[in-house]
Amino acid sequence: MDLIDKLDQTLGRANVLRGDETAKYASDWTGSFVGEPVAVARPANTSEVSQTVKLAAEAGVSIVPVSGNTGLTGGTHGPGALMISMERMNTIREIRPDARVAIVEAGVVLSQLHDATAQHGLSFPLTFGARGSAMIGGALSTNAGGSNVLRYGNTRSLCLGLEVVLPSGEILNLMSALHKDNAGYDLKDLFIGAEGTLGLITGAVLKVVPKPQAYATAMVATRSLDAALTLLNQLQLETGGAVEAFEYMPGTYMDAALALFPKMRQPFADRHDINLLVEVAASSPADATADAEGTVPVVQRLEQILGALFEDGAVLDATVARSDAQRTEMWARREAAAEVSLGEGPVVNNDIAVPLDKVGTFLDLAEKQLGAFVPDAKIFVVSHLGDGNVHYTVRPSDPKPDVMDRIMETIEDIVLSLGGSFSAEHGIGLTKRPSMKRRKDPVALDVMRSIKNALDPDNRMNPGKVLP
Amino acid sequence: MDLIDKLDQTLGRANVLRGDETAKYASDWTGSFVGEPVAVARPANTSEVSQTVKLAAEAGVSIVPVSGNTGLTGGTHGPGALMISMERMNTIREIRPDARVAIVEAGVVLSQLHDATAQHGLSFPLTFGARGSAMIGGALSTNAGGSNVLRYGNTRSLCLGLEVVLPSGEILNLMSALHKDNAGYDLKDLFIGAEGTLGLITGAVLKVVPKPQAYATAMVATRSLDAALTLLNQLQLETGGAVEAFEYMPGTYMDAALALFPKMRQPFADRHDINLLVEVAASSPADATADAEGTVPVVQRLEQILGALFEDGAVLDATVARSDAQRTEMWARREAAAEVSLGEGPVVNNDIAVPLDKVGTFLDLAEKQLGAFVPDAKIFVVSHLGDGNVHYTVRPSDPKPDVMDRIMETIEDIVLSLGGSFSAEHGIGLTKRPSMKRRKDPVALDVMRSIKNALDPDNRMNPGKVLP
Repeated sequence: MDLIDKLDQTLGRANVLRGDETAKYASDWTGSFVGEPVAVARPANTSEVSQTVKLAAEAGVSIVPVSGNTGLTGGTHGPGALMISMERMNTIREIRPDARVAIVEAGVVLSQLHDATAQHGLSFPLTFGARGSAMIGGALSTNAGGSNVLRYGNTRSLCLGLEVVLPSGEILNLMSALHKDNAGYDLKDLFIGAEGTLGLITGAVLKVVPKPQAYATAMVATRSLDAALTLLNQLQLETGGAVEAFEYMPGTYMDAALALFPKMRQPFADRHDINLLVEVAASSPADATADAEGTVPVVQRLEQILGALFEDGAVLDATVARSDAQRTEMWARREAAAEVSLGEGPVVNNDIAVPLDKVGTFLDLAEKQLGAFVPDAKIFVVSHLGDGNVHYTVRPSDPKPDVMDRIMETIEDIVLSLGGSFSAEHGIGLTKRPSMKRRKDPVALDVMRSIKNALDPDNRMNPGKVLP
Repeated sequence: MDLIDKLDQTLGRANVLRGDETAKYASDWTGSFVGEPVAVARPANTSEVSQTVKLAAEAGVSIVPVSGNTGLTGGTHGPGALMISMERMNTIREIRPDARVAIVEAGVVLSQLHDATAQHGLSFPLTFGARGSAMIGGALSTNAGGSNVLRYGNTRSLCLGLEVVLPSGEILNLMSALHKDNAGYDLKDLFIGAEGTLGLITGAVLKVVPKPQAYATAMVATRSLDAALTLLNQLQLETGGAVEAFEYMPGTYMDAALALFPKMRQPFADRHDINLLVEVAASSPADATADAEGTVPVVQRLEQILGALFEDGAVLDATVARSDAQRTEMWARREAAAEVSLGEGPVVNNDIAVPLDKVGTFLDLAEKQLGAFVPDAKIFVVSHLGDGNVHYTVRPSDPKPDVMDRIMETIEDIVLSLGGSFSAEHGIGLTKRPSMKRRKDPVALDVMRSIKNALDPDNRMNPGKVLP
């Protein structure tokens, strides 16, 4: 094939994978999306991405970008397309500690950036379970969320500048490190979260923050979700908004996690329905400095707040981490979520958001309404409670398409009745397109289609994704 | 005229102003942009905006939106167009304290929202000198900045949801109150900052924050701009990022302000070159609560930090506000900026941003290079120093067009050589279009034009603004 030959010449044979060589890319990690691309191009830099896109355009071949391939919605499914892998574009171009920015290529792995910023006493505060494989390009393209959105916002909030290769192969340079820049339309945010359907993100200027000098981390059992919200609001008030994570793991989630990972320990002596992972950062050096007895102020304050709510009956039990090892153990429970919920058999996988004070209502309604027609379905819930974001996975005993559809629609009905979104942080990809069609404001869909058509008139950029 | 008759029928005669009735709208407050519109429509709600836009579309008449009319770049200049004033759409639809959102119409005046949120112990943390007239619609359309961007971001960062009337008159409902919503392209951020060229913003869901229970506010004179940055970084570190404002007023600015406002007092007994207005919020109730002797911890901490830097020689003098009246007096100096710099005669008005650590370099280069060809020009500088944003106004003695152009281009050259932007927070409007043409990446301009053409193919929405 002519395109392959030209790519060989441009990128070198070793960087144009075909046939069996594409196996690693032809399936995503959920295993739900399998399909062989015509080839996988592995450009080394933005100029090579540009040349690759131009060659594909000449050949009329579609392009599907792939970075860490850890998405959950089939966003990198590319049968018959030219996949462009960002894996060789893994250079951290610059870290500027004074300006608090990191300038990176799209193939930089999230944990690689964590390590690099830590050497400067800084932190790139985007984190989630797949951080050891997920790449910045994919995180930006899906506007990934994770566990620290509560304090630092999602990927969009952490991006100051962007470099994009357009469908024409032209390079759009928006690599600003400025905090204020009102020179025309906000193109950056259009490409962030567009899942590669408008262009390929090749580089970014990212915000970094001072690494908190200490954390107070705790597992907390509360009486109710309302009591959990009370705890969150009080913590936010008392710490000046230094709550970094507020994660909810129901008793049923803990049961499933413990069954799957025999070495994992119960968070408390007793089983509780509402288990929270709470993390507060020290917001000043004074907060982080241990006194003569080894007491760290931020930890002490968390203990005091928990103590008062325990007296009150709102908190049923609590354990505060005394070491990094204990903190890691607490986080391991939460980060097992993907394995726990997607373990075996077909599931209806929902990533919904509702206003903070509606999470309890959502869970009650969903359990009740699903119970009416799939009473023996297994339900896995884990939630970024501080963001109103719930991962709600349902595994019916009989996964017939019409049952799966009805489960999805039931959940969507509830979410929309509560003013929520059917896609909070995982994006649309392939799996949420039916929801987009059913649930998204038709006027908004028309505007999205106009933009797609204006920027990618031949529909060659990650075709079939996002827009129904 | 047929359109006027139809508008009379739709909105009522009193809400379709023409002839002399349009005088208030036919000139912006800088007085630089004067031109009579065919009429000014004053719809009462979103449905009436939609009908008005449809009638204008049928008549083939252009639309120029206007809210508070306090812009600085001619963005509401509408000779021959139908102006749509948002002034009657001034309802705060809802304030939800628990969810920390305010749902407002586009014509709500900024200070009106400040007052309403204060009643709930909350704050909408966007503020600038024109807050008594500026409206939310205009603030969103220009992505306005102001004095608290340092802590809370610009208007874009404070907006969760948006309602927009499209060029077709259709209503685009993006009024989400969610912190996570990845359902398709980020349309909201495309309309924010588009200055009405893609559609008319009619309503918004805005973030509100707990009102700080105490502030520590000070005027500080430092030895140098580097010393000022040292102060900023130390304050951010010690307070966990609770610095709300960090404003720079050079000695020359103070001289001009004192000359213009005879009742204004010098900030210090001695005249200093570098005068800063610094404001830190209490980040917890403990920080805000006065002890038995009336000492407020956040104020005490600011005094300690200033004291140490005074010993060090970095701080030359400092006054900490002891009362609300003293705080107000400090802010009045900063908020006189528009009057001070735009007072009399033609100016070249620049609103630039550079990386934080380049502000001093920018000022040095600009003074030197301008001095070479307009040695007797008056230069007014005032800066949101914590954002790297400098308002740089030049009034040459002989304001010939070619001199004005050369001043602008000289400043742009310096800004771009430092990785900055020629438009930080005031937008493009008419006045910055030549800069857009000269300085914006042509690829970015092409993408912007594609989007404009896709959404407003007849170029009827605020024509001639933003895009060169």
